[in-house]
Amino acid sequence: MPELTSVRLRAPYLILIGNITDPTDAKTGQGIVQWRPELVAGQLRFPECKIGIGVPDLTIADASQAGVKSLIIGVAPVGGSVPDNWWPYIEEAAAAGLDIVCGLHLKLADYPRVVAAARKSGARLIDVRNPPTELPVGTGVNRSGRRVLMVGTDCAVGKKYSALALHHAMKDTGMDSTFRATGQTGIMIAGEGLPIDSVVADFISGAAEMISPDNDANHWDVIEGQGSLFHPGYSGVSLGLLHGSQPDAFVVCHDATRTAIAGWEHIAVPSIADCINQHVLAGQLTNPGIRCVGISVNSSKLPASERTAYLGRLADETSVPAIDPLIDGCTAIVDEIQRRYPME
Amino acid sequence: MPELTSVRLRAPYLILIGNITDPTDAKTGQGIVQWRPELVAGQLRFPECKIGIGVPDLTIADASQAGVKSLIIGVAPVGGSVPDNWWPYIEEAAAAGLDIVCGLHLKLADYPRVVAAARKSGARLIDVRNPPTELPVGTGVNRSGRRVLMVGTDCAVGKKYSALALHHAMKDTGMDSTFRATGQTGIMIAGEGLPIDSVVADFISGAAEMISPDNDANHWDVIEGQGSLFHPGYSGVSLGLLHGSQPDAFVVCHDATRTAIAGWEHIAVPSIADCINQHVLAGQLTNPGIRCVGISVNSSKLPASERTAYLGRLADETSVPAIDPLIDGCTAIVDEIQRRYPME
Repeated sequence: MPELTSVRLRAPYLILIGNITDPTDAKTGQGIVQWRPELVAGQLRFPECKIGIGVPDLTIADASQAGVKSLIIGVAPVGGSVPDNWWPYIEEAAAAGLDIVCGLHLKLADYPRVVAAARKSGARLIDVRNPPTELPVGTGVNRSGRRVLMVGTDCAVGKKYSALALHHAMKDTGMDSTFRATGQTGIMIAGEGLPIDSVVADFISGAAEMISPDNDANHWDVIEGQGSLFHPGYSGVSLGLLHGSQPDAFVVCHDATRTAIAGWEHIAVPSIADCINQHVLAGQLTNPGIRCVGISVNSSKLPASERTAYLGRLADETSVPAIDPLIDGCTAIVDEIQRRYPME
Repeated sequence: MPELTSVRLRAPYLILIGNITDPTDAKTGQGIVQWRPELVAGQLRFPECKIGIGVPDLTIADASQAGVKSLIIGVAPVGGSVPDNWWPYIEEAAAAGLDIVCGLHLKLADYPRVVAAARKSGARLIDVRNPPTELPVGTGVNRSGRRVLMVGTDCAVGKKYSALALHHAMKDTGMDSTFRATGQTGIMIAGEGLPIDSVVADFISGAAEMISPDNDANHWDVIEGQGSLFHPGYSGVSLGLLHGSQPDAFVVCHDATRTAIAGWEHIAVPSIADCINQHVLAGQLTNPGIRCVGISVNSSKLPASERTAYLGRLADETSVPAIDPLIDGCTAIVDEIQRRYPME
């Protein structure tokens, strides 16, 4: 049996920007630069490209010379695939021994010239959406160390951002924490992780257990959430992740103005109270002490005049801090965690 | 994109018994004969074999002559694989044009002689554990017709048996119902279905939706459950199946003497009341009217003197019928269903 392992990337990265024309297509690369600038050696742009992510331009030869280990295809071009004229660059990078890391809905193995180049140089072809084929079934056995999981009232409510912001706020106060990635962009930022929504159903919680192994008593894993218990398409992923993460604490992530599940408009977004209650009820299976420690709100669509009152009301109703991480930061949630879980 | 479809088998079946020596190894074949005798043309036994499942012995030539369409490898020999001396028979069946249907942890595609024989004859090689690769994401949209789902306080508490017994009891009263299979043995019995625990996590509820499509207003799908919401390894499968099935009604399946999750002894089996409550709470997402209509108990390990009192107490506590399907049959649950859901 192959070793059980998560997806692991090698830094430093060269980020492929190509010739995109819309800055939002560079979101993944920007995220990596924002959260992990130390991983990024540079960007690979074509001469005509006007979009940048604030890092040096490098050719593949330069990058190889400078010890770059991976080419990250982190853009999201229209159609979700890679334009034909990008492939010669990808092949060149593979030939130069750079791992090719791809987060798009395609299989690098389907590109014979890239495969051949990688085989010759020893580079790895890593589709970040592809989990390892050998995964364990979840045990539910208690692990050492502390864990906080991001959960959502819906998908795409800022769970990854909240996890990263919380992790950094914990670091800033001197706490020992690790961001644990469960999705493709998160994995590129963390440098490792498992795409939890792509594993075979029987292994969801087992994969989640692998992501946050035993650790020091005062160490916190800050775990990126996926989906929502209240999402008719993805709830199974979320419950398996909850049980496998066995979190001591969770943060509810929410979009202040969303009333229906995005794209599933016939399903209502739950109340924050229901969201907390059902996570406590379900989460007790593998961590009887589970509790909510904060509400992380995307309030960008609220009128500025209503924001403070809205968050104040949420905090009153739930008795935990309610913040917009982009505006307020996560200090209030870190304080709540420190109050509830004193160092041992 | 390939057509979205469940695993579909062609009857009649020839069931491969080989040379097993332990009757329990023939459980799958026995189950098919018990529930679907009309699908089974015969059994294929080696001369020295003393075990039978009560159907005629057929050679592959006889079977082919008689219009048999599939060879079912339904035994569970020690080690979970097929003994070497069985493969020539499997190859012969494939060469004769019989689909090869396998429920074991192996890939038929890994046996080149069988692959070659099947390719030549046009036979299909069907690993029942392998779901189709193209599946939809769950929509949560309300479907026509009625559905009842088996759920469990643990795995292996009689969900498949309960579903089949309930389906037949409904048929016996003239109700219009279909057994919907979500596991390998169930699929062999139903002739179609999806192995819900083997699909990619993102598609659990979508697969469940495919299994029980729109139907007549008074038609009931009786859906085989998988796992348990209270199982630390498989809860994600169970929640996705619950949301995708959008059941009107559910039956709690339970082993009367089990106090801990089998093989996960550090996790307690939930109370029946907690099991009902959490299924109602979660199930309301896709079917606000969801309710429990019965408790199906495996009471085989209870002293006979305690059985009636135990079931009576459960019925009192839950206000729904509590039966052992093997002893009492499912009539009481059918009555409850008819009372709660009058024909339209």
